[in-house]
Amino acid sequence: MSLIDLLREALDGPGLLTGDDMAAWSQDWTGQFAWTPLCVARPRDTAQVSAVLKAAHGARVPVVPVSGHTGLAGGSYGEGAVMLSLDRMNAVEDIRSDARLAVVQAGVILSDLHAAAGAADLNFPMTFGARGSARIGGLLATNAGGSNVLRYGNTRDLVLGLEAVLADGRVVDLMSDLHKNNTGYDLRHLLIGSEGTLGVITRAVLKLVPQPRAYVTAMVATQTLLGALEVLNRLQDLTGGAVEAFEYMPADYLKAYADMHPGTRAPFAQDHAVNILVELGATAPRDVTPGPDGSVPLMGYLEDVLATMMEDGAVVDAVVAQNDTQRSEMWARREAAAELAYARPNVLVNDIAVALDKIGIFLEQADTVLTGIDPGARTSVVAHLGDGNVHYSVQLANPEAKNAVMEAVEDVVLSLGGSFSAEHGIGLAKRPSMARRKDPVALDMMRAIKAALDPHDILNPGKLLPE
Amino acid sequence: MSLIDLLREALDGPGLLTGDDMAAWSQDWTGQFAWTPLCVARPRDTAQVSAVLKAAHGARVPVVPVSGHTGLAGGSYGEGAVMLSLDRMNAVEDIRSDARLAVVQAGVILSDLHAAAGAADLNFPMTFGARGSARIGGLLATNAGGSNVLRYGNTRDLVLGLEAVLADGRVVDLMSDLHKNNTGYDLRHLLIGSEGTLGVITRAVLKLVPQPRAYVTAMVATQTLLGALEVLNRLQDLTGGAVEAFEYMPADYLKAYADMHPGTRAPFAQDHAVNILVELGATAPRDVTPGPDGSVPLMGYLEDVLATMMEDGAVVDAVVAQNDTQRSEMWARREAAAELAYARPNVLVNDIAVALDKIGIFLEQADTVLTGIDPGARTSVVAHLGDGNVHYSVQLANPEAKNAVMEAVEDVVLSLGGSFSAEHGIGLAKRPSMARRKDPVALDMMRAIKAALDPHDILNPGKLLPE
Repeated sequence: MSLIDLLREALDGPGLLTGDDMAAWSQDWTGQFAWTPLCVARPRDTAQVSAVLKAAHGARVPVVPVSGHTGLAGGSYGEGAVMLSLDRMNAVEDIRSDARLAVVQAGVILSDLHAAAGAADLNFPMTFGARGSARIGGLLATNAGGSNVLRYGNTRDLVLGLEAVLADGRVVDLMSDLHKNNTGYDLRHLLIGSEGTLGVITRAVLKLVPQPRAYVTAMVATQTLLGALEVLNRLQDLTGGAVEAFEYMPADYLKAYADMHPGTRAPFAQDHAVNILVELGATAPRDVTPGPDGSVPLMGYLEDVLATMMEDGAVVDAVVAQNDTQRSEMWARREAAAELAYARPNVLVNDIAVALDKIGIFLEQADTVLTGIDPGARTSVVAHLGDGNVHYSVQLANPEAKNAVMEAVEDVVLSLGGSFSAEHGIGLAKRPSMARRKDPVALDMMRAIKAALDPHDILNPGKLLPE
Repeated sequence: MSLIDLLREALDGPGLLTGDDMAAWSQDWTGQFAWTPLCVARPRDTAQVSAVLKAAHGARVPVVPVSGHTGLAGGSYGEGAVMLSLDRMNAVEDIRSDARLAVVQAGVILSDLHAAAGAADLNFPMTFGARGSARIGGLLATNAGGSNVLRYGNTRDLVLGLEAVLADGRVVDLMSDLHKNNTGYDLRHLLIGSEGTLGVITRAVLKLVPQPRAYVTAMVATQTLLGALEVLNRLQDLTGGAVEAFEYMPADYLKAYADMHPGTRAPFAQDHAVNILVELGATAPRDVTPGPDGSVPLMGYLEDVLATMMEDGAVVDAVVAQNDTQRSEMWARREAAAELAYARPNVLVNDIAVALDKIGIFLEQADTVLTGIDPGARTSVVAHLGDGNVHYSVQLANPEAKNAVMEAVEDVVLSLGGSFSAEHGIGLAKRPSMARRKDPVALDMMRAIKAALDPHDILNPGKLLPE
C-alpha cells in the first residue's frame, strides 16, 4: 500500500488532504516560506497521530508538525513532507480550578484557552499578538515567549506534564500534574522547545494563575532607556514584583503604526524617543481595596513612581488607561509588531536578548554596523524590555546583504553576552546562526540526541540543527 | 601509564587520594550505602575535571561525581570507581546584584551561597536541613527540592545557565545569564536532575531573589489536614502568594523530636494531630510598613486568618514566633526530619508527591497497606504540605518486607496519580520503582539518551536507570 493509502486508512474522511486542499498548509504567516507538501494529515486523537507517524516512519517520509502557522523562523516548512496538523485536536479537556491547571489537546488555540481559564476566574499567563491563531502545541514546541514572561516565565515554566508521539509512532506519557517529580531525565523540558524534531506534542497539563483582580495599564515616556529601567525597578520594589508587562516602542515604531492605522490616536500629544507600555496586575485584595481616601493602592504605586520621576525629569510623559477600551488600544499598538515588520519587503527579523542594562548599547552598536553594511536599510524595533528581549527588524535596501547583516548583528549580541534567538527559536531561518554561534559541544550533544531518538530523521528534518 | 598515574599527573598534590584517605568518600550520610572506591579525584577547576574524565574514559573506568554526600537515594555509591569530588571547586565567582544572579562553582556549599547572597541583600531561595554540607553541584544533579519550592520552584527553576563536562572530558558551555534563550534543545534542563549520569556540572549561573524584608513564622495546629490546606489557601489569596513554606508535622513526629532533643520545648501546651510550620515572606514595603495603629500588615494577614478559623474550630492552636530565636527553634524542629528518620534501623524512606487534596487519603491508605504487610512497622511522617510532597518513612519490624512495602506504598501513590520520587531522585534506592512505575517509552528514551551521550557507561553507572 502507498503511504497516502496507509494514511487515508489511518485517518477518517476529512483527515487527509491532498492537492489544492493543502493550500493553507503550504506557507506560513510571514510569507517568507512556501512549499508543496506531500499531503496534510489532520488526526483527531493521539492514536491517529501515532498511526500517521508509524506509517511515515515505515516509508521514511518526513513529517512536519504544524499548529497555527504563526512561527517566525520557518519551522513549519515542509517541501514533500507529510504536514501533521493538530488543528482538529482542539479540546480543552479539563480546567481544574482548585489545582489551578488545565488539561488540553495540543491543537487548542491560545485565546480559546484564555477564555476557558477566564471562565473559572483563572488565567494562562502567556500572551502575544498571534494568540487568536497560535496553538498550544506550537507554543510548547517553540517554548514561546511573549509579553508576560517577566512575571510568569516562558512557556516551559507553565507546563507540568505532556504527552508526545515519537518518530516511530510510540506514545510517551509524561502527563504529570505534580509540581515535584524527580523520576529520571526531564524529557518534558527536552521536548519543549525542540521544534517538532524529537516528538509531536499531543496533550499537555498547564499551570494556571489567579486572574488578576485588576490591571493598571499605562503608556510612559522617558528621556532614556535607563530611565525606563529605573521605572521598572522602582515599580517592582514597591509592588513586590507585580509588573506583568514592560514593553518598549521607539518613536519610529509608533509612527509606522500610525501610518498603517490612520484612524488611531497617538499615545501622547508629542513624540518621544522612549515609549513604554507598562501593566501591573493585582493578585491580592490589598492592592485593589480602596483606602480611606478612596484611592486604589495599585494605581497609587504607579502614580507615586511617575510623580517622583517626572519631577526629576526622567519621565517626560504618561497616560494611564481609564477603561478597558483604552487598555485595548494600548495593547493593539504593541501587538501589531509582527504585522508591521512583515508588511515590508526584504525584512530580516532579529530576535535577540541581552542583559537589561545593555539594551541601549546593543541598539547603538547594531545601528552602527547596519549603516556600515547596508546604508539604506531601515529598522523597526520593539522590545520586551523587562526581559532584555529586542525584536530588531531590518528592512534591507540591499537584499544581498542579508547574511552579512545577520552575522554583524550577532557579533554585537555575542560581544554583549546575549542570545541570537531569544523566543522565536531556530527553525530554518536561524540555522546559520546556530552553526556559527552555538557552543560546538552543545551542538554535538543535540545531534547525538536527535540521532538517538529519531535515527531516520523523520521529524521536521532540516530544522533547528545546522547541517 | 596506569589510570592512577594519569590522574596523579592531571591533578596536583592533594588532588588525588587513595587508601585510608578515601574514608570520607566511601559512604554517604544515610549510612545505608558504603563502598570502596578506586581513588578520589579532587580537581581545582574545570580543566582538571575534564582531564580526570578523559583519563577515566580512556581506561573505561566508572566515575562517580560527588558533592556533599547528603543525597538520600544512594546516588554517590561508587564501588571501584573514581570518586570525582567537587569540594575544592567552592568559589562564589560573582554576585551580580543588579541582575540578581550568582555565578558559582559546583562545589559551593549551599549555606555559603546563602551568606554571599545575603551580603548583597539577596537570597538564593532553596533551603533544607543539609544546607550546611550540601553543595550546589549536588543540588543541580538531583534537582533538589526543600522548603521554599512552594514560592520559588525547584532547583531547576533557579538555574539560568551551567557548564558541564561530558563523559569523554569535553566541556559544554551553557553559561547563559539570560531569561530568554531559545537556541536548540534545552540541555540545561536535561543535565539538571540527571544525577551525574550524563555530565558533571562544574559551574552555574543561579537566580537570586530579593531578601524578604520580614518573615512571619508560626506554628499552627488544625483539626484536619483539609483545614490546614484551608489556612494555606486563605493566606495565599490574602497575600497574593507570599507563603514561603508550609510544612506538616504530625504528633508522632513532634514526639520523636522531643525524645531526641530532651531540652527543647514543645510548640504547644497540648498535643495536636496536625501541626503546621507556616512562614510568610514580605517582599514589598506595603507588607512591613506599620499602619496608623502600629500594626504590621503581613502579621495582620496571618492573625486575621487564624482568628476567623479559630472561631469556627478549624484551627485549634497557634503560636507566632516573636523573634529570630523562636523562628530558629521552629525551623530546627522541621529540619531534623532526615536525622530522625535515619536514626532508626531498617528505615525505608518514601519521598512521594500527590495532589494537595489527596495527602490525607494517601496517608490513610498507606498506613492500611503497611499494617497489612508489616504489622510491627512504625512510621515517621513529615511533609512539604504546600507541594503535596510527603516523606513517609517506615521503620520496618520485618526487614524482609522492604520491597513489598515499597511496592505497596507506590501502588497507593500511583492510584492517586502521584510520583514515587518527588525530590530525592532515583539513585540506587529507587531503581526498582523506576522499572516498575515509569512509562516504558520514557525509559526507552532515557536509555537512548544515556547511550548517545555516554556510550561506554562511564558516568555514575548503575544509577537512575533500571537494568
